Amino acid sequence: MAPRPTESNEHTPDGLAAPALADAMRRALDLARRGPARGVNPQVGCVILDQTGAVIAEGWHRGAGTAHAETDALSQLEPGAARGATAVVTLEPCNHTGRTGPCAQALIDAGVARVVYSVDDPGEHSRSGAVRLRAAGVDVVPGILHAAGEALLGSWLTAARLGRPFVIAKWAQSLDGRAAANDGSSRWVTGPEARADVHFRRAAADAIGVGTGTVLADDPSLTARTSTGTLYASQPTPVIFGRRDLPESAAVHAHPRRPVRLDGHDLAADLAALHAQGIRSLFLEGGPTLISAFIAAGLVDEYLIYLAPTLLGGSRTAVTDIGVGSISDARRLAVDSVHTLGDDLLIVARPKGHS
Amino acid sequence: MAPRPTESNEHTPDGLAAPALADAMRRALDLARRGPARGVNPQVGCVILDQTGAVIAEGWHRGAGTAHAETDALSQLEPGAARGATAVVTLEPCNHTGRTGPCAQALIDAGVARVVYSVDDPGEHSRSGAVRLRAAGVDVVPGILHAAGEALLGSWLTAARLGRPFVIAKWAQSLDGRAAANDGSSRWVTGPEARADVHFRRAAADAIGVGTGTVLADDPSLTARTSTGTLYASQPTPVIFGRRDLPESAAVHAHPRRPVRLDGHDLAADLAALHAQGIRSLFLEGGPTLISAFIAAGLVDEYLIYLAPTLLGGSRTAVTDIGVGSISDARRLAVDSVHTLGDDLLIVARPKGHS
Ligand SMILES: NC(=O)c1ccc[n+]([C@@H]2O[C@H](COP(=O)([O-])OP(=O)(O)OC[C@H]3O[C@@H](n4cnc5c(N)ncnc54)[C@H](OP(=O)(O)O)[C@@H]3O)[C@@H](O)[C@H]2O)c1
Ligand SMILES: NC(=O)c1ccc[n+]([C@@H]2O[C@H](COP(=O)([O-])OP(=O)(O)OC[C@H]3O[C@@H](n4cnc5c(N)ncnc54)[C@H](OP(=O)(O)O)[C@@H]3O)[C@@H](O)[C@H]2O)c1
Repeated sequence: MAPRPTESNEHTPDGLAAPALADAMRRALDLARRGPARGVNPQVGCVILDQTGAVIAEGWHRGAGTAHAETDALSQLEPGAARGATAVVTLEPCNHTGRTGPCAQALIDAGVARVVYSVDDPGEHSRSGAVRLRAAGVDVVPGILHAAGEALLGSWLTAARLGRPFVIAKWAQSLDGRAAANDGSSRWVTGPEARADVHFRRAAADAIGVGTGTVLADDPSLTARTSTGTLYASQPTPVIFGRRDLPESAAVHAHPRRPVRLDGHDLAADLAALHAQGIRSLFLEGGPTLISAFIAAGLVDEYLIYLAPTLLGGSRTAVTDIGVGSISDARRLAVDSVHTLGDDLLIVARPKGHS
Repeated sequence: MAPRPTESNEHTPDGLAAPALADAMRRALDLARRGPARGVNPQVGCVILDQTGAVIAEGWHRGAGTAHAETDALSQLEPGAARGATAVVTLEPCNHTGRTGPCAQALIDAGVARVVYSVDDPGEHSRSGAVRLRAAGVDVVPGILHAAGEALLGSWLTAARLGRPFVIAKWAQSLDGRAAANDGSSRWVTGPEARADVHFRRAAADAIGVGTGTVLADDPSLTARTSTGTLYASQPTPVIFGRRDLPESAAVHAHPRRPVRLDGHDLAADLAALHAQGIRSLFLEGGPTLISAFIAAGLVDEYLIYLAPTLLGGSRTAVTDIGVGSISDARRLAVDSVHTLGDDLLIVARPKGHS
C-alpha cells in the first residue's frame, strides 16, 4: 500500500504546506534506503528545503563511521545557505557525540529554522535531539509519514527500543508440527524454494543462532548461500547457544565470521551481550529446544514458520514446551502473511499486540 | 474457472457438432445439481436432443427411490419422440435393476441413437451401461466434459470406486500442531468463524465420526448447528468408534439420528459396514488417536486442518503416531487451498497423487 500523502496527526507549520513536506519525506525515505540495512546504525535520509520549498540538498547515511544523513546533506551547501531552511529527516536528529558530532547541534549551527522528522530516535544515548533543537528555538515537527518511517526502520527500531537484537524465530515443520521424523531424519522437511528463502533471509540478518544440539546433530555451516551454493556477500555472525563443547571439525568453524558462543542460561543477558557487540537482528534457526526457550521467555519478535505439506506424527515436535498450561494461556500470534514457496507454505507472524 | 467448451479427448460424432454436445452437457450438469448432494445416489442430469440438436427434454434425479435422470427426461416425451435422438447424461447410464429399471435399456427401448456421457459409472452393480447400449447398436460417446463431471460427483465417485465412504479428516490445532493445552483444555483452539465452517461442512456429510475418547472427554452433541445454535435441516449420522461404554446421559444420545457404534479395530471393515448402510461420506472429527489411526491406515481422502494463530507446546499433539519412521516415509499431501476464517487459517489438502 502506498503511504497516504498526509497522515491524520499531520502538522502544518507556517510556510511550507503539508503535502510538500510529505513529498520531501518520501524522498528522504528513498534516500535512506540507499544506506546499509544491517548493523548498528539505522538507514536515515535527509532533504533540505529552502523557504520556497525547493530542494537544496540531499543526504543519507552510508554506515557506521560515516557522516549521518543530516551532516551529509549540510556538507553540500555553502556556509550560510541553510539559514532559515527546513530539514526533512526520516529519524529524529541525534543528540549524541559518537564517531560524528550530534546532528541536532549541526542543524542548529547551520541556522536551520525547522526540522521535520518521521520517527523518534529511541536510542538511549542518541535520543532527545528534538529537545535540544527546540531549546535552540528551532521549530520541530515530529511524526510526518510516521508509519512509513517505522516500516523502513523495522527491526532496528525494536532493537533500539529493547536494547537487544530483533529476534526472528524460524523453523520448518510438517503440517502436524514435527521438525523431524521419529528416527531424527529431517533432511529435508521443506523443499528447495523454502530453503532458498531461508538463505536469503539469513543474509539479511546480523546474526544466525542455533543451539549446541543442532550443531552436534546436523553440523550446519550457518552460512547464507545462493541456490548455486555460493556465499551471499553479506554473512550473518554465527551464534551458538549452549555449554557443550563442539568438535574442532565442526563446519561452523569454517564460517567467514568468527562464531560467538553464549551459554544460553540467561537468554535476555545473552541478547544484551549480542546487542553490545553491534548485533541488531538475530535469525534463530533452532533447534526445538532453543526456539522453545526463546518463545517461553517472550523473546521472539517475528515468527517464520515453513509448513511442508506432509504429516510425520511421532515425538519430534518443532516446538517442545513453552510454559503454556491451559488453553487460555496460549501464546497468541498475529499472522502477517501466508506465502506459497514451491509445495510449502510460509507463515509470517508476530506476537499478538506487537507492531 | 469455467469449463472449457471442448476438451482435448473430445469426440465428434457424426451429426451434432462437439460444441453443441458440450453445451448440452453443461446444461445436464446444471440439472444434476438440482438433485440432493448427499446419500446413496449421485447427482445426475440428462438432456435429450433431436437430430437438429434442439433440446426436446430435460431430467434430473431427485434422490433414492425416484426416477433416474434419463427416465425422468424420457417421461416428458410422447412415445416414439426419442427415436433417433441423442441423450446427453452426466453419468454413464446404469445397467442395474434397482427400485427402477436399468436406464441403458430404457434408452434402447425409446430408440435413442446416441448416448453421450461425462463420467463412467464405477458402481459394482450399476456399471457397464455403455456395453449394453453398444450391444444394442447405440452410438456411445464417453468422457465429454469429464473433469467437470468428476468435480460434480466428487466424494460420491470415490465412495463408489472404493466401496467405502469418502473420509474427510478434520482437526483444529495451534500452529505448532497441538489439539489442546497440557491440562487438556481445548475450548476453543479456533475461533467462531472456523467453528461455523465446521458445522456447515458437517451438515453436508452423511456421517460424523469420533472416538470414544472424545465422547468421554468432551460429551459433544455431534449435530450440525447454525451460528445461532439451531440445527441444520440435514444432520449427519453420528458414528462412534471404540469399545468403551458411554454414559446413558451422553449428549450424542439426543442426536436426531441414532448413533452407530463401531469398535474400530478394523477400520476398513467398519467403513465397508457404513457404506452398506448407505453412508457415502464420513466427516471424521477426532480425537487425535482415531484420526491418527485413519491416517496410518491410508483411509483419509481429504484433510481439513484448521490452524489457530497460537502456540501451545506440550504433549497434546493433534496427530499422534501415524507409522512414519523416517523423513522419506513422510505422508505427503497436496494442498488444494488455504482460507482465512477470522483469525484462523484452513488448509484443505488431499493425499498426494489422489485426485
Ligand atoms: N526443522 C527445523 O527447522 C530444525 C532446525 C534446527 C534443528 N532441527 C533438528 O533439531 C534437532 C536438535 O534439537 P535440539 O532441540 O536438541 O537442538 P537445539 O535447540 O539446537 O539445542 C539444544 C541445546 O541448546 C542449549 N541451550 C542453550 N540455551 C538454552 C536454553 N535457554 N534452554 C534450553 N537449552 C538451551 C542446550 O545445550 P547445552 O546442553 O550444550 O547447554 C540444549 O541442550 C536436530 O535433530 C535437528 O535436525 C530442526
Ligand atoms: N482439536 C481437535 O480438533 C479435537 C477434536 C476432537 C477431540 N479433541 C480432544 O482430543 C481428546 C481426546 O483424544 P483421544 O485421542 O483420546 O480421543 P479419540 O481419538 O476420540 O478416542 C480414542 C479412542 O478411539 C477408540 N478407537 C476406535 N478405533 C480405534 C483405532 N483404530 N485405533 C485407536 N483407537 C481407536 C479407542 O477407544 P476404546 O478404548 O473405547 O476402544 C481409543 O481409545 C479430548 O481432549 C478432546 O478434547 C480435539
